[in-house]
Amino acid sequence: MRHRHIVKKRMEGCWEQVKGAHDAWSGWVCVLLVGVAAGTCAGIIDIGATWMSDLKEGVCLEAFWFNKEQCCWSGPSLNATSLDSAIKCKQWYSWGQMISGGSDAGSYIIGYLFFVLWALLFGMLAAMLVRVFAPYACGSGIPEIKTILSGFIIRGYLGKWTLLIKSVGMMLAVSAGLSLGKEGPFVHVACCCGNIFSYLFPKYGRNEAKKREILSAASAAGVSVAFGAPIGGVLFSLEEVSYYFPLKTLWRSFFCALIAAFILRSINPFGNDHLVMFSIDYDEPWHLQELIPFILLGALGGLFGKFFIKFNIMWCRYRKFSRLGNYPIFEVLAVTFITALLSYPNPYTRMNTSELIKLLVSRCGPEDDVELCDYGRNLNMTDTFKYSAVAGNDVHSALWKLALALIFKMVITIFTFGIKIPAGLFIPSMAVGAIVGRMMGIGFEQLIVSNPDSVFFSNMCEAPDKCIITPGLYAMVGAAAALGGVTRMTVSLVVIMFELTGGLEYIVPMMAAAMTSKWVGDALGREGIYDAHIALNGYPYLDSKEEFTHTTIAADVMRPRRNDPPLAVITQDSLTVEETESLLRNTEHNGFPVVVSRESQYLVGFVLRRDLNLAIANARKTSDGVVSNSVIYFTGHVPVNPHGPAPLKLRKILDMAPVTITDQTPMETVVEMFRKLGLRQTLVTHNGRLLGIITKKDVLRHIAQLQNQDPESILFN
Amino acid sequence: MRHRHIVKKRMEGCWEQVKGAHDAWSGWVCVLLVGVAAGTCAGIIDIGATWMSDLKEGVCLEAFWFNKEQCCWSGPSLNATSLDSAIKCKQWYSWGQMISGGSDAGSYIIGYLFFVLWALLFGMLAAMLVRVFAPYACGSGIPEIKTILSGFIIRGYLGKWTLLIKSVGMMLAVSAGLSLGKEGPFVHVACCCGNIFSYLFPKYGRNEAKKREILSAASAAGVSVAFGAPIGGVLFSLEEVSYYFPLKTLWRSFFCALIAAFILRSINPFGNDHLVMFSIDYDEPWHLQELIPFILLGALGGLFGKFFIKFNIMWCRYRKFSRLGNYPIFEVLAVTFITALLSYPNPYTRMNTSELIKLLVSRCGPEDDVELCDYGRNLNMTDTFKYSAVAGNDVHSALWKLALALIFKMVITIFTFGIKIPAGLFIPSMAVGAIVGRMMGIGFEQLIVSNPDSVFFSNMCEAPDKCIITPGLYAMVGAAAALGGVTRMTVSLVVIMFELTGGLEYIVPMMAAAMTSKWVGDALGREGIYDAHIALNGYPYLDSKEEFTHTTIAADVMRPRRNDPPLAVITQDSLTVEETESLLRNTEHNGFPVVVSRESQYLVGFVLRRDLNLAIANARKTSDGVVSNSVIYFTGHVPVNPHGPAPLKLRKILDMAPVTITDQTPMETVVEMFRKLGLRQTLVTHNGRLLGIITKKDVLRHIAQLQNQDPESILFN
Repeated sequence: MRHRHIVKKRMEGCWEQVKGAHDAWSGWVCVLLVGVAAGTCAGIIDIGATWMSDLKEGVCLEAFWFNKEQCCWSGPSLNATSLDSAIKCKQWYSWGQMISGGSDAGSYIIGYLFFVLWALLFGMLAAMLVRVFAPYACGSGIPEIKTILSGFIIRGYLGKWTLLIKSVGMMLAVSAGLSLGKEGPFVHVACCCGNIFSYLFPKYGRNEAKKREILSAASAAGVSVAFGAPIGGVLFSLEEVSYYFPLKTLWRSFFCALIAAFILRSINPFGNDHLVMFSIDYDEPWHLQELIPFILLGALGGLFGKFFIKFNIMWCRYRKFSRLGNYPIFEVLAVTFITALLSYPNPYTRMNTSELIKLLVSRCGPEDDVELCDYGRNLNMTDTFKYSAVAGNDVHSALWKLALALIFKMVITIFTFGIKIPAGLFIPSMAVGAIVGRMMGIGFEQLIVSNPDSVFFSNMCEAPDKCIITPGLYAMVGAAAALGGVTRMTVSLVVIMFELTGGLEYIVPMMAAAMTSKWVGDALGREGIYDAHIALNGYPYLDSKEEFTHTTIAADVMRPRRNDPPLAVITQDSLTVEETESLLRNTEHNGFPVVVSRESQYLVGFVLRRDLNLAIANARKTSDGVVSNSVIYFTGHVPVNPHGPAPLKLRKILDMAPVTITDQTPMETVVEMFRKLGLRQTLVTHNGRLLGIITKKDVLRHIAQLQNQDPESILFN
Repeated sequence: MRHRHIVKKRMEGCWEQVKGAHDAWSGWVCVLLVGVAAGTCAGIIDIGATWMSDLKEGVCLEAFWFNKEQCCWSGPSLNATSLDSAIKCKQWYSWGQMISGGSDAGSYIIGYLFFVLWALLFGMLAAMLVRVFAPYACGSGIPEIKTILSGFIIRGYLGKWTLLIKSVGMMLAVSAGLSLGKEGPFVHVACCCGNIFSYLFPKYGRNEAKKREILSAASAAGVSVAFGAPIGGVLFSLEEVSYYFPLKTLWRSFFCALIAAFILRSINPFGNDHLVMFSIDYDEPWHLQELIPFILLGALGGLFGKFFIKFNIMWCRYRKFSRLGNYPIFEVLAVTFITALLSYPNPYTRMNTSELIKLLVSRCGPEDDVELCDYGRNLNMTDTFKYSAVAGNDVHSALWKLALALIFKMVITIFTFGIKIPAGLFIPSMAVGAIVGRMMGIGFEQLIVSNPDSVFFSNMCEAPDKCIITPGLYAMVGAAAALGGVTRMTVSLVVIMFELTGGLEYIVPMMAAAMTSKWVGDALGREGIYDAHIALNGYPYLDSKEEFTHTTIAADVMRPRRNDPPLAVITQDSLTVEETESLLRNTEHNGFPVVVSRESQYLVGFVLRRDLNLAIANARKTSDGVVSNSVIYFTGHVPVNPHGPAPLKLRKILDMAPVTITDQTPMETVVEMFRKLGLRQTLVTHNGRLLGIITKKDVLRHIAQLQNQDPESILFN
């Protein structure tokens, strides 16, 4: 008997240990699963998007499920960034070739037609899927995830339908050739995975605060798979997305991003082994005077960010408050049509935006025969490609085309970001910046090449015809500056740019441009694009970046105001069930403070409306003798009263440790407490007596009022 | 008149604007200055240390103030990592050469003698300087800076004397050839700069919390100049050093680290343009099965970290509590003597530790003729160096020497870290890891080269004699793993390793090793080396990483305990000056709660001992009629009493908004409030009545008790 008891106890001990280990490891296991899922989703989306993008141009006759690259594997290896449209590949037939049968003009027109038609089809499909199945699947998702991580709950935003529709919609939207990227939607998809998997672990599924830790890790995985930038993803989650980021979350995010990147690398959707997306092959030193154009690029990036945000928000506001908002599918079709129509003629807009960026940041090698590399070089010398040279005619024509592409991209992106399909912003912003950077780089290069003896440039030229300057570096810096201006990231931006390009030598130029871009942007308006969209949608987001510098005190903000009716409170031992029920009916507060007595107002605790409703309903159903006249007791000791009705003891549902502050507390401290402790309300006391209550909504309204904004635009659940 | 008024007003407006701008920009200007100062200090230290290190071996006869490299600039360019001691350089005379006049054995012995003597001289100087002028200048400084950033104040720890002596002492300690690094002391030096410059800006100099933001940025600059790793520095500050790290600090740290790296690059102390310290020149892909040795290296790193911490703490505790602690200079001399004596014979320990790491992580190129590169390669093929080959005899002898160097480094570092001179830990830990990694890499390489047809390795070999495996990569991963095991960093570690080596392709191996190392280390004991030293010294550091998982409540922790005398409180309108003075004499508390009356105990506010002392002394000196019998009033309204002595009004010094909690608050919440709000004490109430007080010391004692540690070892100022 005793033996059995010991065995049982030991087994229980083992079980306890397993349970303890499970509890300790469940976080790691959960982020492992999220990483695997995010990597897998990204792989599928990338494969699908590549196939459908190629479908716009032609089809693989032998096996239609192959994309262009796979189709041509049997042929000679091809340069993916080649601008030459007549690629020699036997199995691949472009639509123009196939139908017109060879005539150049006819082939061009039919190609154009198919390009536009496929784009319209993809756009319509994406818009309809989003409209019908998952309205939350539109947009970038980052503003909403920021809000969710700050403590707001949007039901269904991270559900499995959203995951499915966002994934399919993203493939379609990218294939339609619209000016949008995949990183924002990837973050959203990863967060959906995080939300779904957290339900497997009760520790995370049942606790919203714990679940937010998983979501922080998931958003790191999202950026990690979008760019192959695991560390950049962790920093993005830290700097841009997350609200509360303890070190444990840092480690888990790191792990999650690592797993996701590893899975994506194993799936290898693009068929090349590179983890580095826009890898550069140069490491020439840069010179001190080049800092001037770099800082100028930073300033331009900040300006672009400011104006992009302004016009985009203007257009989104117009959409929201006008009849346009009722026809989302029509809007998507219109934007797709215009994009497809205008982008086909210009090779720099027709090509995939990622490929454009890759082309712009790279250096002209000896074997490159694209327009941008038409320099008057003496090809008899072996290392001539290390040095800059006078630009040829093709470079000038490329500059014109780039300028047109720049204007087109800038305008169309303003109208694209915000339409009702999945749409990210990183790649379009980087493309704009890279175009400006490459143009400025070529301009600076020509300036130096034509004045090699000038004192300003003397250290850049070894000999009059041997000047070292790399226009691709300017494109890289420009891309960072534009992205920084739009999103106001700094550290994560520089790390993402490293991981994208591998250009570790160019840390100082990149940092200088990122800081300038942020400063210029902040001087013109403090909000990044995501914060601006949060404000536009009126989400209750308490920004943790801005300092609260006003001198108001808690007494100025708390409810009730001077002429309001007194605060609805519950006494600890005198209110009857009926009185409480009428209080619940007549007010809409989420909770009520409990005080010693209505006269003294000494605070005892706080009780939630939900708990109170539930407890009374339960008591009415089950407990003997609880009637409308029963007194509700929140005290530990209940006096025995044999004549009256049975008392109702509710001490269990009372929160005995509500957060309190005094009426003299500066609002600076109050805001800090709301932010750091993640409060939803705090009670205001004076000498121990309850005076009022401050909710998160009150704080947000107060901040909006101090900034002369409309305090009534703030939502709250 | 009116015109003048307007002009004056406008000027005042301008002045106000300038002042406002100054206020807004002072943070940026301050970190700019800190960055410049940190970069300059680092440059001076690097130049001095290089010169003095070379002085141990020889002297430049033409100009003794030149170091070896500068001295030999006129000669042919030299390979800095060359192991060949007979370097052909006319101006440079080694001591052996100069005195023995050419005989090899004599030259060796005299060289040995001078090496040991110089080392002893440098060691003694460093120890005496620290002992006499600035006792705080010893050690790494990171544990103390962590404690300071958590809110503790150590006077003089960041003063100008510490700055000066730490800088000079670091040069001497590095030159003495001890097994120590510069990064910890660099962080300390940068923080001293931060502290000194913050006094130029009243906003930062007068506010300890604001000053800590500057110190966080300064520690980023410290790592930035130590390794040329600005982003790694920011992340180090975030992950390891800082306690509270808002986004604004992130941006400032980023800027500060950037400026410091830029200044150091401009000073260019090593005479080469590389920002990347241990730059690698390979980017061969790694293979999936190589993850097994990488993870094994991670586990070994974690084990090394655990044992290093354990023995180092044991030795430090012995030093602290035995007579050894009274002879710090003797200890330094003994360690220096043993180090110099044992390190000279082995070329891998005689050389600079940084150079050793650089040698170990690099690949054998075609022109390398060092021992480690003696492979049986067919030199008639052009690209043969891309492939692994059978190791020659020299590699085997190098392995033996490396094994000896490993044991020596491991043992001597345990005794070195903690002696009373400036000493960092990064470089020695990385050296240990790099040795293990290179040895394992060579072993794995030979295993594959001898079994190229095995199924396990088939994808690593293109042909039986064409296997791709890079032992240098293993050294890199091993260095990361050992450093991770000692410090328990993850993200910052991987970023620092990137910035040190430029090996962006190897992100997954590095991350895998760092995570494994952390997990293994944490499984064996949760503390990193810095936390262990904080605990050893008993600093009041409330770790923000560990979760508080116990179910105690505030009532269990607060003072007074059940049988203690009641809490010393002050009433708001009945205590006389004399009674208050006796209270101040008889207690040692830092502050006193103010209540409505002794009977009711309703809380009004909190008053600091310092303020109370000052106010009473002032009143006694100046105010008419304030005598021992005067009543002290903390209320707004003071009753007029013409007969009694004049009242003393002290409402001004009363903190009307002390942080309060109820006695039922779980300690988990209390600990979170202490951490996140940076509290020093909180008052405990029940239904508005004051029950007791919880100070930071009480919380730390409680945590120590729960972990079965001695609660009395905690210091507090």
